Amino acid sequence: MNGQLDALVEAVADAVLAEVRAGLAAQGWFQVEASGRHVHLSVADAKALFGDDYALNWAKYLSQPGQFVGQQRMALVGPAGRLEQVVVIGPERAQTQIEVSRTDATVLGVDPPCRDSGNLYNTPGIRIENGNAHVDTQGGLIIAERHIHMRPEAAAALGLADGDRVSFALDSLRPLTFRDVKVRVSENADNFMHIDYDEANAAGFSNGMFGLICK
Amino acid sequence: MNGQLDALVEAVADAVLAEVRAGLAAQGWFQVEASGRHVHLSVADAKALFGDDYALNWAKYLSQPGQFVGQQRMALVGPAGRLEQVVVIGPERAQTQIEVSRTDATVLGVDPPCRDSGNLYNTPGIRIENGNAHVDTQGGLIIAERHIHMRPEAAAALGLADGDRVSFALDSLRPLTFRDVKVRVSENADNFMHIDYDEANAAGFSNGMFGLICK
Repeated sequence: MNGQLDALVEAVADAVLAEVRAGLAAQGWFQVEASGRHVHLSVADAKALFGDDYALNWAKYLSQPGQFVGQQRMALVGPAGRLEQVVVIGPERAQTQIEVSRTDATVLGVDPPCRDSGNLYNTPGIRIENGNAHVDTQGGLIIAERHIHMRPEAAAALGLADGDRVSFALDSLRPLTFRDVKVRVSENADNFMHIDYDEANAAGFSNGMFGLICK
Repeated sequence: MNGQLDALVEAVADAVLAEVRAGLAAQGWFQVEASGRHVHLSVADAKALFGDDYALNWAKYLSQPGQFVGQQRMALVGPAGRLEQVVVIGPERAQTQIEVSRTDATVLGVDPPCRDSGNLYNTPGIRIENGNAHVDTQGGLIIAERHIHMRPEAAAALGLADGDRVSFALDSLRPLTFRDVKVRVSENADNFMHIDYDEANAAGFSNGMFGLICK
């Protein structure tokens, strides 16, 4: 019963916060989230790493509906170094995609392009290790391009369409304006601006910050 | 004789490039340099690390006149981790100053403020190791605040004074505008914009890039 009550309280709080974000988004203010390095796996690569009977065990939900962090942790192995304790994000995808920062790429000794999620044409591969198992991916390694997840109501209020490019100002400790930022409008989204840890560190970002779209 | 000729050729090339930078700077364009983690040592700390008869052996000059990279390499040691192969920048200073990025600070497990060089009041210390020798500094650890080194002629042409704050736009792979950037005007400077590697990686910076001051 307490478990059900906790879940209800959490669901109400989440819905209230989403409403607050929606109201602010309609005026151009978006909460910023910094994404750490992570892996999206295809079913085939997940089976190769975890065995045929694997499941991506849920650890916590992410802000974008349906996306979750799994309990599994893996290593990325490049010619110059390793990154340990890399998270898996579920659910599985058609193609394995590995997202790292430029700093991570330097540690690994690889040179992936900065790309939109899903745009994996002509990207390098990387070794993913889980204990004694590993896969050498055929491509899929990218530096994720920063982007703004936007619900259709916010897009309509701001006069923006899917694929538009905007500037986004962050009045943080080291204030800066990201330019040429892609807007991704979807009914299946929550209003958030996503950056990686190089961008977060460069800005002096801390959790909970909002920034402003300047067209 | 060949050594003298090489030195002459290099000096002429440097002077020509400085003239090119001066002409561009007068129009607001500054070449950008990314600074990696490094240490400036006091004489007392240098003696503690290298012995009483030490010298900071010259390895190469930096863009700011008189500053040079030494041949020595040291380690920084924090509660969460170590950074190896950290360079020393000469000449010695009145107080030891250690400059790291936010990413480095996370590796070390420390939380230094983002500060102007030389502004070391109430900053944390860090352990600097050289083989079996080490010093635990009394403060001096900072994340270097980005800044623009500017000669007086460029400042006059742009209507700027020492300490002014400007925005600086970089049309790089991940274009962005650094705001609230401090201008440092000095006769003993060459015209350069300095950022750290978090900022360089966030921008998709590569060597040789120029950016533009927008007031």
